[in-house]
Amino acid sequence: MNETTTLARFIAESKWGDIQQPTRHEGKRALLNWLGCALGGSRDETVELALRAIAPFSGAPTASVIGRRERLDPLNAALVNALSSNILDYDDTHMKTVIHPSVPVAAAVLAFAEHRQATGSDLLHAFILGVEAECRIGNAVSPQHYAAGWHITATCGVFGAAAAAGKLLGLDANRMTWAFGIAATQASGLTATMGSMSKSYNMGHAAKSGLVAALLAERDFTSSDRALEAPRGFANVLSTNARLDEVTRGLGQTWELSWNAYKPFPCGIVLHAAIDGCLQLREEHALTPEAIERVDVRLHPLALDLAGKPAPATGLEGKLSVYHSLAVALLYGKAGVAEFTDECVRRAEVLALRAKVSATPDATLDKAAARVRIVLKDGRTLSRDVPHAVGSLEKPMSDHALEEKFRELTAASGNSEALIQLVWSLEKLDDAAKLARGTACQH
Amino acid sequence: MNETTTLARFIAESKWGDIQQPTRHEGKRALLNWLGCALGGSRDETVELALRAIAPFSGAPTASVIGRRERLDPLNAALVNALSSNILDYDDTHMKTVIHPSVPVAAAVLAFAEHRQATGSDLLHAFILGVEAECRIGNAVSPQHYAAGWHITATCGVFGAAAAAGKLLGLDANRMTWAFGIAATQASGLTATMGSMSKSYNMGHAAKSGLVAALLAERDFTSSDRALEAPRGFANVLSTNARLDEVTRGLGQTWELSWNAYKPFPCGIVLHAAIDGCLQLREEHALTPEAIERVDVRLHPLALDLAGKPAPATGLEGKLSVYHSLAVALLYGKAGVAEFTDECVRRAEVLALRAKVSATPDATLDKAAARVRIVLKDGRTLSRDVPHAVGSLEKPMSDHALEEKFRELTAASGNSEALIQLVWSLEKLDDAAKLARGTACQH
Repeated sequence: MNETTTLARFIAESKWGDIQQPTRHEGKRALLNWLGCALGGSRDETVELALRAIAPFSGAPTASVIGRRERLDPLNAALVNALSSNILDYDDTHMKTVIHPSVPVAAAVLAFAEHRQATGSDLLHAFILGVEAECRIGNAVSPQHYAAGWHITATCGVFGAAAAAGKLLGLDANRMTWAFGIAATQASGLTATMGSMSKSYNMGHAAKSGLVAALLAERDFTSSDRALEAPRGFANVLSTNARLDEVTRGLGQTWELSWNAYKPFPCGIVLHAAIDGCLQLREEHALTPEAIERVDVRLHPLALDLAGKPAPATGLEGKLSVYHSLAVALLYGKAGVAEFTDECVRRAEVLALRAKVSATPDATLDKAAARVRIVLKDGRTLSRDVPHAVGSLEKPMSDHALEEKFRELTAASGNSEALIQLVWSLEKLDDAAKLARGTACQH
Repeated sequence: MNETTTLARFIAESKWGDIQQPTRHEGKRALLNWLGCALGGSRDETVELALRAIAPFSGAPTASVIGRRERLDPLNAALVNALSSNILDYDDTHMKTVIHPSVPVAAAVLAFAEHRQATGSDLLHAFILGVEAECRIGNAVSPQHYAAGWHITATCGVFGAAAAAGKLLGLDANRMTWAFGIAATQASGLTATMGSMSKSYNMGHAAKSGLVAALLAERDFTSSDRALEAPRGFANVLSTNARLDEVTRGLGQTWELSWNAYKPFPCGIVLHAAIDGCLQLREEHALTPEAIERVDVRLHPLALDLAGKPAPATGLEGKLSVYHSLAVALLYGKAGVAEFTDECVRRAEVLALRAKVSATPDATLDKAAARVRIVLKDGRTLSRDVPHAVGSLEKPMSDHALEEKFRELTAASGNSEALIQLVWSLEKLDDAAKLARGTACQH
């Protein structure tokens, strides 16, 4: 079989009319979530340092940098935007592979939206196809590839960025095949970098390398015709158990975006069900902190291993503390970026409520589930079983909830509502560059 | 052990005075050979296409592109120069790993020579250290890494480029460690691309990515502190039999440049001994083609498998034809770039002499050896056993032979002699940018 060519031809020949409404809408949800994450992360120190290192070598500043005044060439803009959007660990997750699919692909299409005249539907079409290529290649090498130490969003993201950029450039099947070849030979990213700034850099490098792959292929710069399946190609070299039929089976019939999930809370995913339960009980019973005697939560033992920090000292540690996470949910009715700052984990009222939370391992529960019990001072006991948290595939975030998340992340940008409207009406946008420019710092 | 930090500290703390004369001289030989290869390859179609794709996104044109009038930013100049220098397959070879060590490292230092004020000895020092890092890391993962499909000059070259650039930037041990981390997470390159333009692109991508690693680390952009030896670091993820002590054992006492070899002929290395034997006999006996009745050569069976094309139709095929290679050696007294063109393999006098060459497999010979016998029309028989070809570690090319190779490759440049003198007196050069500018197209 020649999976590389089959996938390349599918991307090259896809028509906008082939994409059904539910997939289009999921594409817009993913883009809205991604833009929010990028705006939220755009002032982080990681972005500042990357800009300081890279900007002196940027080409003509024709592309917007999300949330910032600087402009860069499209390749470096894609790098920085991918990096920004991953920093908060609030990005989307393709549940079959743990790829964060939007990060490299959206960064690539946004950069080219200003570089080439593209409409909103061109942008959305290229984005959907890029995610499709990236996640199918990820499916083919999972789970061994990530387990071995490959940072899968980067190693597969470079294909997604190449596919999306290649679509915007109008590459034919032959050139798209070469673009995949040039992407394959640039595929990199080690999970050893996790916990350092380089973890988000991996995403940026993948986005930029994917764009370069498409640009080279456009000029007839040749590569392997069988980069995925060749004996010394991507699948065989970077995986010991590749199933290449995952790349091509049902192409155009199923869409990987339907396995995409959005995080409602920027903390360990194993805590989401417990937070969800607390938020439900708080709202239903109009709970105040003063009314609470104690909070008991049962979680799978592995969840508690991962996220059982009893006394977090920093916001980052708070993201792995069930005690902190439930305290803020019950105190403030939310668990967003503002609830995982260094300041918040040290706040007196948070510490007071945190002390009332106890957690018990319970191997009968699913890893993503939680059982919450709140004992009130008036003697009542409130309970909630949460088998699937909000944000899971079984209980996806609503469009409204995604908007609220976007508003929270972009409060400082001053044009949150305009951006939300631009994304929801993307198909009607005549010039996709308007979206890119709208994401830059407006003041 | 912490091999990453040990290597980083060695690079950061190395003083020019620590480098002994033989290593300095070998560094200059490698640079001369590399510059010649880059000048010789600089007009290739591969370079033209890469420039067409990349130049529109280049930053301020402060760096020279070898053999060309275009100027680019240092990162893209390094990319193109590495690519040019690999195209002719005439570059150097670190015999323990089959890394072409100069390609990514020299491209990196030359680009930064114009970017940062560096002297000739700064440049040479950084180059020697870059090759050391690259080849030691290569030793640690060889031979399994290359055999698995990793294009080792690219995957290890990114470390060499990062080390050399980091040295020119004056990174301390801590930042050099991060530069290695950022290099590791960008390490890529698949041998599946061989036979396409992407094969040489791998070198360019490695050179550029190494420079970016050093630039980011300079700004305190963090990475893994244990990128080589971490459980999910470079050695464990990209090799199944890494021996990390190769990275650190004897650091500063032995130098990997002493295992570096230069090709006297731009064709399959298994043919070099046979060509060498023919050239010796031709010179000693003032042979003319008319005097030759027939040529018999014995080669290891594997050598004949690789390079036994009886009727090559193109210059590229001629590089894998013992018949063509010996014919041109005996006809012209050389087997250089001009003898492996499409035109030359079709020339009548070459075809006539080619028909007189016969080759016999002989498993008693070493793979790098040859036994040549020339029967003359006057009845005499001339024989020559060549256990080690010129250019091998046992019989290295002389400085004079390297100069001749350089002149052949750079005949069109118009300033071959000036460049040769610049390289041999590199330690005395106050401004290394003079070398970089001297390599650009002068007319």
